[in-house]
Amino acid sequence: MSTEPASAALDVAALRRALDGDHHVVRDRVRELLSDPCFDRSDVGSLDRDAYRDRVLDWTRRVAATGETMRGYPEEVGGRHDVAGFIAGFETFAFGDLSLLVKIGVQFGLWGGAIQQLGNAEQRLAYLPRVGSLELPGCFAMTERGHGSDVQALRTTATYDPVGAEFVIDTPDDQASKDWIGNAARHGREAVVFAQLVVGGESHGVHALLVPLRDEGDDRALPGIRIEDCGDKLGLQGVDNGRLWFDGVRVPRTALLDRFGSVDEAGVYSSPIESPGRRFFTMLGTLVQGRVSVGGAAVSASKSALTIAIRHGLDRRQFEDPDGTEVPVMDYLAHQRRLLPLLATSYALSFAQHDTVDALDAIIRAPEGEDVEERRRELEPRAAGLKAVATWHATETIQECREACGGAGYLRDAGFAALKADTDVFTTFEGDNTVLLQLVGKTLLTGFRDDFGNLSPLGTAGFVAGQVLDVIVERTAVRQVLGAISDVLPRRDGDEGGLERADQLELVREREEHLVSRVAQRLRAGIKDGRDPFEVFSYCQPHLLAAARSHVDRFVLESFAARVEREEDAGTKAILDRLCDLHALRTIERERAWYLEHGRISGGRSKEVTRLVDRRCHELRPHAADLVDAFGIPDAVLASRIGAKDVTGDRW
Amino acid sequence: MSTEPASAALDVAALRRALDGDHHVVRDRVRELLSDPCFDRSDVGSLDRDAYRDRVLDWTRRVAATGETMRGYPEEVGGRHDVAGFIAGFETFAFGDLSLLVKIGVQFGLWGGAIQQLGNAEQRLAYLPRVGSLELPGCFAMTERGHGSDVQALRTTATYDPVGAEFVIDTPDDQASKDWIGNAARHGREAVVFAQLVVGGESHGVHALLVPLRDEGDDRALPGIRIEDCGDKLGLQGVDNGRLWFDGVRVPRTALLDRFGSVDEAGVYSSPIESPGRRFFTMLGTLVQGRVSVGGAAVSASKSALTIAIRHGLDRRQFEDPDGTEVPVMDYLAHQRRLLPLLATSYALSFAQHDTVDALDAIIRAPEGEDVEERRRELEPRAAGLKAVATWHATETIQECREACGGAGYLRDAGFAALKADTDVFTTFEGDNTVLLQLVGKTLLTGFRDDFGNLSPLGTAGFVAGQVLDVIVERTAVRQVLGAISDVLPRRDGDEGGLERADQLELVREREEHLVSRVAQRLRAGIKDGRDPFEVFSYCQPHLLAAARSHVDRFVLESFAARVEREEDAGTKAILDRLCDLHALRTIERERAWYLEHGRISGGRSKEVTRLVDRRCHELRPHAADLVDAFGIPDAVLASRIGAKDVTGDRW
Repeated sequence: MSTEPASAALDVAALRRALDGDHHVVRDRVRELLSDPCFDRSDVGSLDRDAYRDRVLDWTRRVAATGETMRGYPEEVGGRHDVAGFIAGFETFAFGDLSLLVKIGVQFGLWGGAIQQLGNAEQRLAYLPRVGSLELPGCFAMTERGHGSDVQALRTTATYDPVGAEFVIDTPDDQASKDWIGNAARHGREAVVFAQLVVGGESHGVHALLVPLRDEGDDRALPGIRIEDCGDKLGLQGVDNGRLWFDGVRVPRTALLDRFGSVDEAGVYSSPIESPGRRFFTMLGTLVQGRVSVGGAAVSASKSALTIAIRHGLDRRQFEDPDGTEVPVMDYLAHQRRLLPLLATSYALSFAQHDTVDALDAIIRAPEGEDVEERRRELEPRAAGLKAVATWHATETIQECREACGGAGYLRDAGFAALKADTDVFTTFEGDNTVLLQLVGKTLLTGFRDDFGNLSPLGTAGFVAGQVLDVIVERTAVRQVLGAISDVLPRRDGDEGGLERADQLELVREREEHLVSRVAQRLRAGIKDGRDPFEVFSYCQPHLLAAARSHVDRFVLESFAARVEREEDAGTKAILDRLCDLHALRTIERERAWYLEHGRISGGRSKEVTRLVDRRCHELRPHAADLVDAFGIPDAVLASRIGAKDVTGDRW
Repeated sequence: MSTEPASAALDVAALRRALDGDHHVVRDRVRELLSDPCFDRSDVGSLDRDAYRDRVLDWTRRVAATGETMRGYPEEVGGRHDVAGFIAGFETFAFGDLSLLVKIGVQFGLWGGAIQQLGNAEQRLAYLPRVGSLELPGCFAMTERGHGSDVQALRTTATYDPVGAEFVIDTPDDQASKDWIGNAARHGREAVVFAQLVVGGESHGVHALLVPLRDEGDDRALPGIRIEDCGDKLGLQGVDNGRLWFDGVRVPRTALLDRFGSVDEAGVYSSPIESPGRRFFTMLGTLVQGRVSVGGAAVSASKSALTIAIRHGLDRRQFEDPDGTEVPVMDYLAHQRRLLPLLATSYALSFAQHDTVDALDAIIRAPEGEDVEERRRELEPRAAGLKAVATWHATETIQECREACGGAGYLRDAGFAALKADTDVFTTFEGDNTVLLQLVGKTLLTGFRDDFGNLSPLGTAGFVAGQVLDVIVERTAVRQVLGAISDVLPRRDGDEGGLERADQLELVREREEHLVSRVAQRLRAGIKDGRDPFEVFSYCQPHLLAAARSHVDRFVLESFAARVEREEDAGTKAILDRLCDLHALRTIERERAWYLEHGRISGGRSKEVTRLVDRRCHELRPHAADLVDAFGIPDAVLASRIGAKDVTGDRW
């Protein structure tokens, strides 16, 4: 493959513009900011925990000083109401120190975002300018020790006391303590606390309240509040995660973020949404931004890892060819196979992320009064699914890249130590990936039904009592007869064994439809047999997760394919098209057992898919350097000795 | 599945004896030793690098004080010639701090092992007692900056100077500097240095020499030697890896470890093995113990991770069942699917490891003069393949277990932080896994031919010029006609959809044979077409790696199946049989696309394999706690808050 002539050079700038999308100016601003020597992170591994945390707070202040941290907030508080721009910036920060990234996410995204989304105009005006400037560091206190992903089951209480017109916040036991709360252990002065709202003895489900934690300039917790440091973590040591206990802590009635539920002075609860379940999910839905942001950050982390590993693979030579010249390891097909499909999928996820962010942005910008509920319900499984797939992709990519760099990749200065450790939690925070895919699967089964039920797996089983499954089963029954056909993709004349985009899309779509239909059938059959609902659910759970995954595969490929079509620059379009091909083929190759089992492709065609993946890798090899250059990660930000583009002297 | 009645309790002690094997006494001794509070490692994350390294040296001294570190050495130097026992101990140390493990491996295994295997009786007597007691800390200086896995291409030189009857050691340039050398940065006082031996202007290939690095009680390097610290690593911070440069360093003629090549006083080189290539591979082959040890350590690390995650999964309850009781996450099929197949494979690898260690032990114990070359050649690909598969298994298992524990798994006190970081290098040290599988693949192609050629991928392509491939192609041609049969495993009466052990073995064996045959055909066809050998090799490389992997899959399953047959205790046999089933089914499920593509199984049977994996998971679920208890990792050694067996108070 070393004999392959180098193809015409790519227009890296044009490709980078395609990746950066509409918010390229924000992205470039963050690239420039992070390139400032003050953001150098080469020594953070040797800092003690508190020193690292204080460094991160100092960095966050510098970020806040740019004013960009207000970008996502409404105009009336001094922001630009530009959530897409804020997320674009956030994604770019993910090229740098990830503790800083998470601190930014906690302060401006979660703490500020909760006030923005759940508060009223007065609360927004009172808080957001101080949150955006970091004058008021705060926390998003949702997760509890006993319940992370099952938010509905939170046990902290906020009981209304009409005498003083106050809420009393309590942690009934250790299982109900708030856990993993970013900013809590050291810097946070106030928190949005999620608690079961109890008014006049009646519970109205989970609501959020503003609760002061510490006075300014005083490290100690306020009376009634106990704060504990979560201690050493696997990564993200620069983030001060903590635990919180509340013992009769009183806050005024106006501390309730009351968009979806309020209590008047007389102690009467009211909400614009009558059904508690629906209220809960609507409230939770407004917080989808965190999930979208984590997914985007994961894609960025994959890009960092690929930049390092591909540059290293082009640099590192091992074993001689017949002329006695050692060969760059990137010239071995097995090495291309390790890295280039992951590169193609990183491109794919970037474009799927653009579309997801745009959808979120449009919802948030929608004029007051416009009904966006359906769009929100479409966005939620998309955000959840993309977060799960993108964060798993990051874990896989970073690991593969580390190994592809051999010993050099194991030195801290390669950059993988921090990348691996810091991103590792992405798969389980902001919603555990498995639980998120379960949510996606359930949404697929209910077809965005009005009654959203609850997140519990048994809620899913409960649906089988309804008619939803019958509808799905019928809707997709037509497809079933295709099962007998041995290869739905007969070779065309002049095809040369390729697989057209339309065929790729067809295969990926069909898989989703079939999986959803089958899992519905199995759930229904299980219940009809009178089996225990939990047993039925558990038995079908892996199937449901596969259906959810296939849903994400489908919309990611659709996003990428549509983006290729929209591209106007011919050269850029050609290379994106090839990357889209590799991504699609890899997706099909990964699931080829399923296609074979269901007679969707023949054995011969399946082997051909593998050969096509090989071929695309071979074709993309000459562009490998350009394809990572297009990610536009400045050397100072990448902070990898072996991954730097500009090297003075011997990299080895 | 929570409705499943608990099965009869297992005999955990009997199961543990099966896992521990012949050397259970050694294993128990290490368990006891590591349980001593002095080996507590809860604070190592907060130690600075040098303090951690000195702690590890101190620990190593305590280990040496037991005398067990001499166990593998010959009787005449005070050892027991019990390599299998030494490795059993080493595998048990892998339940504890992994920097200590690697330090033990470097000092007693690599540094001592090189002298044992490559030196003469005099050298062994002069050195091994001081190595085994840690009186003389030393290094194994093989890897160079420019060449890790390609040892034959090392560039350090040892030039014989007949005037003083000395060798002069030189590092020609930075690429030839020794890199990653354990014990070099801080504690090592002497090293086995691998260098190209040049006598009278003629090069005789890579040989090993004893070279002093530092005087006792003096940190500085001796004249002509430059030592650099490798610096911070992703993990294993307690090991002092360093780099070495030699500038005209003189050592006496007798410093050459001369088992496979010596120089007499007159400056005449002689060797018992004439062919330089064969000499090199024979020499390298004697060092296979390191690889075998790493593979075993990787299996132990998987066991630690599974112990933590399974105990956590039994403890942690999430989401309510219809009675309002929260369900242990281990009761969800998706959770069982994540952990139990990895558990079954950890059992499988344990038994394959036993067999591999026994084969190594028998070779080392063979009486002087007995020809063990063929057995060595059989052992090498087995050791290489098992190391690759076991270390990848460890990486996968630890990651899966970390995620399965959610946030609790991300806290340092869960144990995954160290496990992940420290084991990460296992996949690329002691031979990069991909290079090792390539070696295995090549061995399969050559059928243990006499002329071992070289490790280079192009050496592989070179074989196509010979007749070897024709033989393989013919040998397996009979199999090819089976390709047309749609399902080689027709359902038997009363089968109930199971897959007998014989069927499992048949499927796994067939895959290996077919893959080896096909890759041989492809290589031959490529060369006959007159294509560039490198291109042909690169093109077939993923196929070759798959063949190698299938070879390992085969002998691992054979080891496990044979072990089940040998088990005499009925209860233990029954549970091992079930685990073997799950392991085999999982192996087939993972490769089911291949079986389908090649018409080896029908689509229906393939889906059945998936259902059988589900069913085995469900059946093994009640035994999950016992199955990890049988690993016998004391709480003090596991050092995991959430993984401890005995908990006082609330684990949460």
